[in-house]
Amino acid sequence: MIASAPCLTSLQTPALILDERKMQRNIGRLADHLSPKGVTLRPHLKTVKSTEIARRLLTGGFGPATVSTLAEAEVFAGMGVRDITYAVGITPQKLDRVAAIRAGGCDLTVILDSVEQASAVVEACQRLGQTIPALIELDCDGHRSGVCAGDPVLIEIGNILHKGAELRGVLTHAGESYEVYGKPAHTKFAEQERSAAVRAAEMLRSAGLPCPVVSIGSTPTAHAIENTEGITEVRAGVYAFFDLVQAGIGVCDVDDIALSVLTTVIGHQREKGWIITDAGWMALSQDRGTASQKVDQGYGVVCDQAGNVMTDLIVIKTNQEHGIIACRTDSKAALPDLPLGTLLRILPNHACAVAAQYSAYHVIPSEPAAPVKVWPRFGGW
Amino acid sequence: MIASAPCLTSLQTPALILDERKMQRNIGRLADHLSPKGVTLRPHLKTVKSTEIARRLLTGGFGPATVSTLAEAEVFAGMGVRDITYAVGITPQKLDRVAAIRAGGCDLTVILDSVEQASAVVEACQRLGQTIPALIELDCDGHRSGVCAGDPVLIEIGNILHKGAELRGVLTHAGESYEVYGKPAHTKFAEQERSAAVRAAEMLRSAGLPCPVVSIGSTPTAHAIENTEGITEVRAGVYAFFDLVQAGIGVCDVDDIALSVLTTVIGHQREKGWIITDAGWMALSQDRGTASQKVDQGYGVVCDQAGNVMTDLIVIKTNQEHGIIACRTDSKAALPDLPLGTLLRILPNHACAVAAQYSAYHVIPSEPAAPVKVWPRFGGW
Repeated sequence: MIASAPCLTSLQTPALILDERKMQRNIGRLADHLSPKGVTLRPHLKTVKSTEIARRLLTGGFGPATVSTLAEAEVFAGMGVRDITYAVGITPQKLDRVAAIRAGGCDLTVILDSVEQASAVVEACQRLGQTIPALIELDCDGHRSGVCAGDPVLIEIGNILHKGAELRGVLTHAGESYEVYGKPAHTKFAEQERSAAVRAAEMLRSAGLPCPVVSIGSTPTAHAIENTEGITEVRAGVYAFFDLVQAGIGVCDVDDIALSVLTTVIGHQREKGWIITDAGWMALSQDRGTASQKVDQGYGVVCDQAGNVMTDLIVIKTNQEHGIIACRTDSKAALPDLPLGTLLRILPNHACAVAAQYSAYHVIPSEPAAPVKVWPRFGGW
Repeated sequence: MIASAPCLTSLQTPALILDERKMQRNIGRLADHLSPKGVTLRPHLKTVKSTEIARRLLTGGFGPATVSTLAEAEVFAGMGVRDITYAVGITPQKLDRVAAIRAGGCDLTVILDSVEQASAVVEACQRLGQTIPALIELDCDGHRSGVCAGDPVLIEIGNILHKGAELRGVLTHAGESYEVYGKPAHTKFAEQERSAAVRAAEMLRSAGLPCPVVSIGSTPTAHAIENTEGITEVRAGVYAFFDLVQAGIGVCDVDDIALSVLTTVIGHQREKGWIITDAGWMALSQDRGTASQKVDQGYGVVCDQAGNVMTDLIVIKTNQEHGIIACRTDSKAALPDLPLGTLLRILPNHACAVAAQYSAYHVIPSEPAAPVKVWPRFGGW
């Protein structure tokens, strides 16, 4: 379904706005960075959850993809994506759904980091008469899940998968790269991902096991990676939209952020310096990802209706359906006069979290003067 | 649509679980508290967003209701609710939708706190040939929107509405009551709501203006109110489900919380004392409402599959689709052995925020051994 609305001013607020031109520029930037390096880009579709955007992100519209839920795998397999990595540790209860997606013709790969999970995959393969491929998840930075690259359990898991399922390779993600600023720091994390993955791949191969896929990536490391020796693919997700967290660590500029929330001024508390809008946390999410960064952007940076940043204004507080806009604490500017009914756009701290609050994108098209498009968005598990 | 699943163990996780027996107990408790006082209860449906639950919350299934979005007003008017207050300040752009809902036979009332909004309502009444009723929002605690009870602008707004629309009365909400602990403190805030509303009503009446509705309320104040003199109705929302924030300020016990998130153990980092689950912030929301309370509950309290609290365990960290469970920092207990595939239930900090992440409730019915019911839930604006 592609419906259309003539222009932003006719929309009911809050509404999720996507600037198609900025998104295409962001998509092109990472593709241009990685393609000369000879590695495959496997975009993570957890941010976008839209078939329209997936078609623009994936190679030929159907190229390799990453997902974070089986609902995503089902929708994208349904639109014809033929190669998907489900990048959250598998549980026994989800293997029947994995098998059903694979039976439909999509090469869906699971990830795991334990002997128990590998045995569950083998059991499912036997029970369902299928061969389910799995990547072994590696922990390269202490961030979350994964086997440490040198841990002998790697071989144990590899042997179980190789005998009873399919050992597809290794995968890692430096989630800690979001916590450091600037390209040199991100390049270091990219090398940390690379060296852990390559070391694990070599360990498996030395034990006589296959390791065709060596997968690394995060948005910061994907944009900063220099050495790709030994790796086969890079994953990244939020880069299609970008957000204030990514701008705050220097991966993009604020001007690259393609996603915003359209909101309306519904009131004022002038003696407090507050402008009240209809975009509360239901519309902006409660993500405060910039709170620990050098510049705390509150619940988002305020722009005018055309998307021009109003430098002094941020959303300082949210309730369920109310946002409170005020001048930054270090600002010397006077609160601008924004009358009742004024439309504003709020740049999000975290695109994944904000987009998740909506069932559709309202898309400002790349072609000038074309009408706003509506692209559906899905959620759930 | 009421589908059914046989039992919790057959559900894909994460899933939103509602204990119908606890919900009915919570609904009964507030009704029993208020009905001898002779005030109308006007439940806020922003938490539940479900027609099945609205039928159980509202008097006769169709009684007075409060909503936070026009999408809620449209759905509940569609199921036959005939008296709704839209309790977020109105903007000119939303008045056509308000008029359409009213034309469908639902007495929808808007709220406002400025001359500009009152004039916009009058303009819409003239343009659309309708009489739209409005309540004047009062600020009784500096929390957010509203006119201060003694402010002469109240009369100015009242006159505009009375001449060109319908002045229905006054409304206030002590959002700050969530920040204090215990019944005596909540009773004080209830009195603060009451005295501000009654004072404003008297001011309007002294100026020869009507004020049939005097509406106050929040979940903490509704449960603690003693003196209801001069008020006509009380509003409350989250009480149907309750949550850890409400338990933390003493409005309910942890055992009253009717909502939880079913999740599966997907891994371990045993040397770190971490159990990893498939309920990240997408499933639990990023609400950290207990962070400023005496007991910080992280992203939620862990229960076993049957709903028994595992006292030492909370969700300490979330990523998009990963939750990390660990012992509380002050706990001396050893991490329990929860093998891969174990089902757990997480009690939420904030029921409104967590429920918003789901399109359905999986309902444990009041009748023992009855199958789990599925009640759809809607979102959007």
